[in-house]
Amino acid sequence: MPEMKILTERELRTLVPLDRDAIAAVEDAFAALATKPVAMPPILRLDISEHRGEVDVKTAYVPGLANFAIKISPGFFDNPKLGLPSVNGMMVLLSATTGLVEALLLDNGYLTDVRTAAAGAVAAKHLSREDASVAAIFGAGVQARLQLKALTLVRPITEARIWARDATKASAAAADLSAELSISVAAVADPEQAVRDADIVVTTTPSEVPILMADWLRPGQHVTAMGSDAEHKNELDPAVLGRATLYVADRLAQTRLLGELHHAIAAGLVAADADFPELGAIIAGRAPGRPSPEALTIADLTGTGVQDTAIATLAFARAVAAGAGTVFHS
Amino acid sequence: MPEMKILTERELRTLVPLDRDAIAAVEDAFAALATKPVAMPPILRLDISEHRGEVDVKTAYVPGLANFAIKISPGFFDNPKLGLPSVNGMMVLLSATTGLVEALLLDNGYLTDVRTAAAGAVAAKHLSREDASVAAIFGAGVQARLQLKALTLVRPITEARIWARDATKASAAAADLSAELSISVAAVADPEQAVRDADIVVTTTPSEVPILMADWLRPGQHVTAMGSDAEHKNELDPAVLGRATLYVADRLAQTRLLGELHHAIAAGLVAADADFPELGAIIAGRAPGRPSPEALTIADLTGTGVQDTAIATLAFARAVAAGAGTVFHS
Repeated sequence: MPEMKILTERELRTLVPLDRDAIAAVEDAFAALATKPVAMPPILRLDISEHRGEVDVKTAYVPGLANFAIKISPGFFDNPKLGLPSVNGMMVLLSATTGLVEALLLDNGYLTDVRTAAAGAVAAKHLSREDASVAAIFGAGVQARLQLKALTLVRPITEARIWARDATKASAAAADLSAELSISVAAVADPEQAVRDADIVVTTTPSEVPILMADWLRPGQHVTAMGSDAEHKNELDPAVLGRATLYVADRLAQTRLLGELHHAIAAGLVAADADFPELGAIIAGRAPGRPSPEALTIADLTGTGVQDTAIATLAFARAVAAGAGTVFHS
Repeated sequence: MPEMKILTERELRTLVPLDRDAIAAVEDAFAALATKPVAMPPILRLDISEHRGEVDVKTAYVPGLANFAIKISPGFFDNPKLGLPSVNGMMVLLSATTGLVEALLLDNGYLTDVRTAAAGAVAAKHLSREDASVAAIFGAGVQARLQLKALTLVRPITEARIWARDATKASAAAADLSAELSISVAAVADPEQAVRDADIVVTTTPSEVPILMADWLRPGQHVTAMGSDAEHKNELDPAVLGRATLYVADRLAQTRLLGELHHAIAAGLVAADADFPELGAIIAGRAPGRPSPEALTIADLTGTGVQDTAIATLAFARAVAAGAGTVFHS
């Protein structure tokens, strides 16, 4: 009888905080994407427009990892009316050698939060100035908070500004993050002001119109846009890509369709087949990273299955080591 | 805290035998495919050639059903060397209104077996002669057995022949099925002889070369080919499609790529864009079924996500009614 481990969100929150190991796992996964015969099929997407719902299924096999994850991410946007969160989901972890289900990670989207923030840290580590100390975060949700925390794990961040459409939420996030991270975090009403002397800008919103303008940016900055994971989402003024010294995709085939690049192509500012390096190639040393302290760099993150496999594999290894979870026979 | 029901293979075998309700559920799902705005994205497929493994993920939303399934089907073909079955898998059942996971069906592929056999019954019900009494089954595995049982639920089958490459397995299947179904089932060494006076022929093998020849067939017969679910699989001599009075696909977009139709197109016998009715349209009365007692009809079944959603929804409803399964909070 096959045996599997079931891990709840609460267990996973304890086992897999956003820490340097999580960042390293995601960094290694991106490097594998550039250097190994990773299998990462296109995202399966089911739309249930009748209920304002959508489900994404992502997966990737990374040679060398004992397991691979299949992640189910539903987003149902009328849920808040029912007192339920919009985004849920779970991961199924399978053995890469037998295909047997080894674990069910009932994380309600928590591991996605961690691996997404970890990708932001990886982008900053390889693209921002090493002395980057000031961060600007657009958005005040879970990712806004985690992305700032992630930056502090890879750069000597001492100061941060939060801008969000809802000023009350921005203030609350700033207060929480000041306390949690022991750095100076201020809510800022003017997004341009938030960006002006930041070394790193991270946009974390589901915006469908640009919220970061090209003429707000200056040499030496790094921008990570992580809010867009669908055709209609767009955080960066397409002209930002024209101004950038270096544009980096998490997965070029995806950012052409779903990322900020998609909108720059649609605006006619970038050729549809223009080639850009992927984050993994830079990590692996196969493409150059930040070319100079004065460069303006952009990371366009849409989310990849290798991140899910990486974080799920880490979660399972830690659960096994800790004897955590419920064993279930099927 | 979200609550879900976990059902094991043993529980599911008891709750969802291959019966008329299972057939009706799959029949309704096919009809919905023809008449409702069903959402059924292309199959997500991950190949792990390093370990001779593959994983298919299928899903479909059927308007009117409270749930939809996401099915994970791994096939790892070196597993028998390890004493493990090649095919495994599970289904995740989500609410169609909130996207919350309501059940984990740890069926190890059992529900797929049932819904696949049920589709064979539905095809025979709508395409074979009503007085069909003699069946020929190619193959001696789980589907060979279930397909014959399925036929007996929709047609007055009194006699059956089993042909399989392995004569010992054919004999064992014939003996088992004679006892189980209380009809006369004989193993036959010559496939042509098995087919000769059969009213219904069902091919259930993973063959990669044709095993049913066109000149073995005669007017009045119905053939269901259900073994091919991948480009390289092929059970029917492509000329069979040329001889058929009526060719019916479970999903035309799929049979053009994965089914017997794919090989007839490749052989130049059928145009790549030739139009054929789908099974659902016939069930719904939107396309004619068997045109005459003398017609030769073919059903090409590659497997669809609506079948998974149908059988998983049935399983969950029965589990709720029976109070079966383990409740788990995540």
